[in-house]
Amino acid sequence: MPRLIPLTSPDDPRIDAYRVIKERDLVGRGGRFIVEGRTVLDVALSKRNRFALESLLLAESRVEALAGLIAQAPDDLPVYTASQAILDGITGFHIHRGLLGIGLRGAEPGIEDVLARLPEEALVVVPLGITNHDNVGGIMRNAAAFGADAALFDFASCDPLYRKAIRVSVGGSLVVPFAREGSAGALCDRLIAHGFELLALSPAGAVTLAEVHRPKRAALLLGAEGPGLPDEILARATTVRIPMKAGFDSLNVATTSGIALHALAA
Amino acid sequence: MPRLIPLTSPDDPRIDAYRVIKERDLVGRGGRFIVEGRTVLDVALSKRNRFALESLLLAESRVEALAGLIAQAPDDLPVYTASQAILDGITGFHIHRGLLGIGLRGAEPGIEDVLARLPEEALVVVPLGITNHDNVGGIMRNAAAFGADAALFDFASCDPLYRKAIRVSVGGSLVVPFAREGSAGALCDRLIAHGFELLALSPAGAVTLAEVHRPKRAALLLGAEGPGLPDEILARATTVRIPMKAGFDSLNVATTSGIALHALAA
Repeated sequence: MPRLIPLTSPDDPRIDAYRVIKERDLVGRGGRFIVEGRTVLDVALSKRNRFALESLLLAESRVEALAGLIAQAPDDLPVYTASQAILDGITGFHIHRGLLGIGLRGAEPGIEDVLARLPEEALVVVPLGITNHDNVGGIMRNAAAFGADAALFDFASCDPLYRKAIRVSVGGSLVVPFAREGSAGALCDRLIAHGFELLALSPAGAVTLAEVHRPKRAALLLGAEGPGLPDEILARATTVRIPMKAGFDSLNVATTSGIALHALAA
Repeated sequence: MPRLIPLTSPDDPRIDAYRVIKERDLVGRGGRFIVEGRTVLDVALSKRNRFALESLLLAESRVEALAGLIAQAPDDLPVYTASQAILDGITGFHIHRGLLGIGLRGAEPGIEDVLARLPEEALVVVPLGITNHDNVGGIMRNAAAFGADAALFDFASCDPLYRKAIRVSVGGSLVVPFAREGSAGALCDRLIAHGFELLALSPAGAVTLAEVHRPKRAALLLGAEGPGLPDEILARATTVRIPMKAGFDSLNVATTSGIALHALAA
């Protein structure tokens, strides 16, 4: 159980990493990321989390309720406590959940690093051009729930360690190995070189999801709602459709990932 | 093609229904609802929309781009146009999409009205205690995509015609017949009386989704994330689980509805 460190000023230099979270929010990089809320912290303090934590910061009023959670943290993790007024002064906005943490990104693996570590039989999810943080978070949540071996993003997609993406992923972003690098085309080249069959979800797909015979190494390609996957990517993949009602063939891309991962992970 | 009616003042009484949308947003009732954005308006102006429209309001700058859409509207539908400055003055906040409409709720059917009109073979989705507008919108989107015959909400769930729920549903809330009335227990009574088998999604469900034999009349019960469905409801239903990875058995409820509707609609 770590020792609690009460703060008396929002300007305390030990919590510099929490200052002006809104800016970090926009940048989403710089070696650190923000975790917040009980459910995500529960994942962050478990063995499933792939990242190190630097510190926690919680509202004094929440210390008692969160004692069980804090007890799971390593003894040497700094856990700062502060009044709600000081917390608001630190981060520049009211923290509803009264619980924040800073994680360390560590060395960022590239696509090739992640691919090299996959088991012989593998299912990976490949979001291409997905810039909506809710959707990236939803995809990471589903990837964790259905045990996908990795998530491989092109660089046009948003960062799964962006604050809101982590929150929506309910911690999935901390659990599923991922990389984010290069173009969609280059990513497909790497997947094919590693023996993956490309399965591209598309409303006009050639086969239905139920007809797909799960290959030993399956890469599930997902495009942004609206534009979908580019033609040159579809041309290189087995295109897969989820049958829908005529006149309303519209699914959210995170929901699509859940339906497809459920079918392929079975 | 309706005639366009240019406005010169945000105080024009013909557009009273658009005034102070934020308040309507909170109330979400009063006989009218708000539709916004091109995709939802596209559904609202189609034959799939179950509701009448009262008027449209669009930014002058969008008239040319939206001409094809407006041409689908009935000739007698008032279509107001205004400068962005006037639009902002009317609704009290900036309208990014430059396109709003007012729909009329009409006579609100009860649970029994909707049940009485269902075909002999039917699939209904039953959200219980779901208060999150994104999730209700996501469920309505999936219900429309997979052709559910109706959505039946208990009164503890939020209104699918709430502004954000319509937006997230991408128009699904306008398409799928729904009612929202009474307690979860009373709703289950009515479903059973109408010959429905209750299928309750639950992480501890007795059978997997893949094992479910689709009954002629199937009611898919969904509870809120976190608390889930109450024990007394689970006790009356066939409980169904979606197999997930140990240690991360967490799915968003709208995603859950998509996975289950895809399986049951097939």
